[in-house]
Amino acid sequence: MHRLHKGKMEIISTVPLENKVDLSFAYSPGVAEPCIEISKNMESVYDYTIKGNLVAVVTDGSAVLGLGDIGPEAALPVMEGKALLLKKFADVDAFPICLSTQNIDEIVDTIKKISPTFGAINLEDISAPRCFEIEERLQKECAIPVFHDDQHGTAIVVAAGLLNALKIVNKSVSNVKIVVNGAGAAGIAIVKQLLNLGCNHVTICDSKGVIYNNRPYGMNHIKTEIAQMTNPTDLTGTLADALSDADVFIGVSVANLLTKELVQSMAENPIIFGLANPVPEIMPIVAKEYGARIIATGRSDYPNQVNNVLAFPGIFRGALDVRAKEINEHMKMAATFAIASLVTDMELSEDTIIPDPFDERVVTEVSKAVSKAAIESGVSMLPAVPIG
Amino acid sequence: MHRLHKGKMEIISTVPLENKVDLSFAYSPGVAEPCIEISKNMESVYDYTIKGNLVAVVTDGSAVLGLGDIGPEAALPVMEGKALLLKKFADVDAFPICLSTQNIDEIVDTIKKISPTFGAINLEDISAPRCFEIEERLQKECAIPVFHDDQHGTAIVVAAGLLNALKIVNKSVSNVKIVVNGAGAAGIAIVKQLLNLGCNHVTICDSKGVIYNNRPYGMNHIKTEIAQMTNPTDLTGTLADALSDADVFIGVSVANLLTKELVQSMAENPIIFGLANPVPEIMPIVAKEYGARIIATGRSDYPNQVNNVLAFPGIFRGALDVRAKEINEHMKMAATFAIASLVTDMELSEDTIIPDPFDERVVTEVSKAVSKAAIESGVSMLPAVPIG
Repeated sequence: MHRLHKGKMEIISTVPLENKVDLSFAYSPGVAEPCIEISKNMESVYDYTIKGNLVAVVTDGSAVLGLGDIGPEAALPVMEGKALLLKKFADVDAFPICLSTQNIDEIVDTIKKISPTFGAINLEDISAPRCFEIEERLQKECAIPVFHDDQHGTAIVVAAGLLNALKIVNKSVSNVKIVVNGAGAAGIAIVKQLLNLGCNHVTICDSKGVIYNNRPYGMNHIKTEIAQMTNPTDLTGTLADALSDADVFIGVSVANLLTKELVQSMAENPIIFGLANPVPEIMPIVAKEYGARIIATGRSDYPNQVNNVLAFPGIFRGALDVRAKEINEHMKMAATFAIASLVTDMELSEDTIIPDPFDERVVTEVSKAVSKAAIESGVSMLPAVPIG
Repeated sequence: MHRLHKGKMEIISTVPLENKVDLSFAYSPGVAEPCIEISKNMESVYDYTIKGNLVAVVTDGSAVLGLGDIGPEAALPVMEGKALLLKKFADVDAFPICLSTQNIDEIVDTIKKISPTFGAINLEDISAPRCFEIEERLQKECAIPVFHDDQHGTAIVVAAGLLNALKIVNKSVSNVKIVVNGAGAAGIAIVKQLLNLGCNHVTICDSKGVIYNNRPYGMNHIKTEIAQMTNPTDLTGTLADALSDADVFIGVSVANLLTKELVQSMAENPIIFGLANPVPEIMPIVAKEYGARIIATGRSDYPNQVNNVLAFPGIFRGALDVRAKEINEHMKMAATFAIASLVTDMELSEDTIIPDPFDERVVTEVSKAVSKAAIESGVSMLPAVPIG
């Protein structure tokens, strides 16, 4: 299919271009008018051009799907696909930008230089820990919102699913013992989202075991930072040590890593997010057999699919609608609650903690909540108007 | 109109995205397949993605229409329009990139960094003399074709019109005395195209008069270069001095600059291209009154419109079709001859030296000629196949 069409997208006109008169409006000389308007009042670029509805989907090809560092050209099919999901789910126009550099300064610089065309930036498939600095610097230096979906999209949906799962097992956010396995883009963002949600007992592990303050090996600046915010009992040791008596396992790591023994070592009614793709940390049927109460994966062929498409289309729609200058923690949290609330108490079950990606209410509710949070947190650049 | 639609373009899918199965093909996990293919064989990016049909329309906002240096945001309506003309006339997908820098090194660097997404680069509305260095360096450093339409598009169409005009007045390319007024992007490129066409007597003027070797004022590196290639009689003085007894005036300068006295001072059957926009160097009716035989302008409401849309869509179509690695002089000259030949001897008249922009044969003939020239000059990256 990708070959048949030579890619998956096309760029079309929304105005007529059939004759000289059409051309004189759409192009010279008529086009001078919006140009003059914008040159007098730069903000009107949002009225006269595609900018206000246009997202750059940017990658350096360093961490594409599960394929790793395959370079900018090989990443293009994913970026085209991502751009089209934004159009399909939220009527946001989006365009792939694949960069021929993996240098942080050059990435930040290049994106800043091309930013006048765009209303927002979506970072995609950029490897950790570089992705953290790139996002942070871009958001500081650009006047438009920046969002790294691999981090925040996943974190927002996981947090929503966890909220609903905890209702079923009747445990509280503040008390549950959570273990996140994987300290890349998604793992770090999940931990931060859970801390913001009020989770007090989060421990994060990487391939070398539990991350703790001043661990003398395998650290980077973001792990050092996250160590200070997690692991309240100053645990050291392995994933097995962390999982003993834990309520929740969230894996963004590798296939088949969660053994039945580890599941059995967890507290009663364990909740398991096995998000490694395409093969999760433990297959749902095995996890159930050894006592897991609720299981979510990244796959569409099992219940409770953690699919970023539940989050990013509505987040960009909501941010663009109120011309947010950033996508902040309030907006991300609003998205989490909006997604969680789409599963009604009647629908809620072990197999339904997360709404269906094709549920049409999702983008509407998420975007409304995100717009509202943007206004309330003072990052909307529009004059305040009541929303929703 | 620009306000109604908030710009003029949208980015849509060419593949179905209606359900989970569609998504599994277009996005994860199906999208991994083309990614893997491209990572194994980078050339296949042309088969599996939009790259091979995608042109970046790049500006720094420094010389937009006749409005000057209005900045990247205010240039966006023009770039959207230009992109849509490529789609309309040649089914080439094109995307506006407006840069927040006017520094030559930064422009070259930024375009290089984003080039993996694109099959070709169209530079637009970048002021002279910076545009010359930017184009030259980009073409040297990028593996994809680079074309500055303000230079070459205009030059190609002017040269085509001149070829036909000379047939009418029965003068020869090698003997006519040509004066080009204006030494910006278009003027310089017109001169070079005419020299390549075999014109032996070309003189170029700027606002300070005739450009000659070692002129002690108002020079830059490109004027110094062009002085060595033109003005065979080492003329000094004003535009009036140059025009005396000239056969052809080509103005890419300012409104109403060509007085009736200047027209009267020209040789018999003068040919006048008054391309200043929207008001030409002389109004056609005035020029005719004072002896001009053939008059072309940039306007659609007079005969003989020099409209770049006759050239650039077919040029990009032709270059992309054979995956040309550059757009060289052979290809530009082929486009000139293709455009000129679309006016048959029967159609040829004072008022018809240039085909109509909506003549559907134009893009077909130009692209065929350009593809052929690319292959013959050895810049096609496809295995040689017979064209046309």
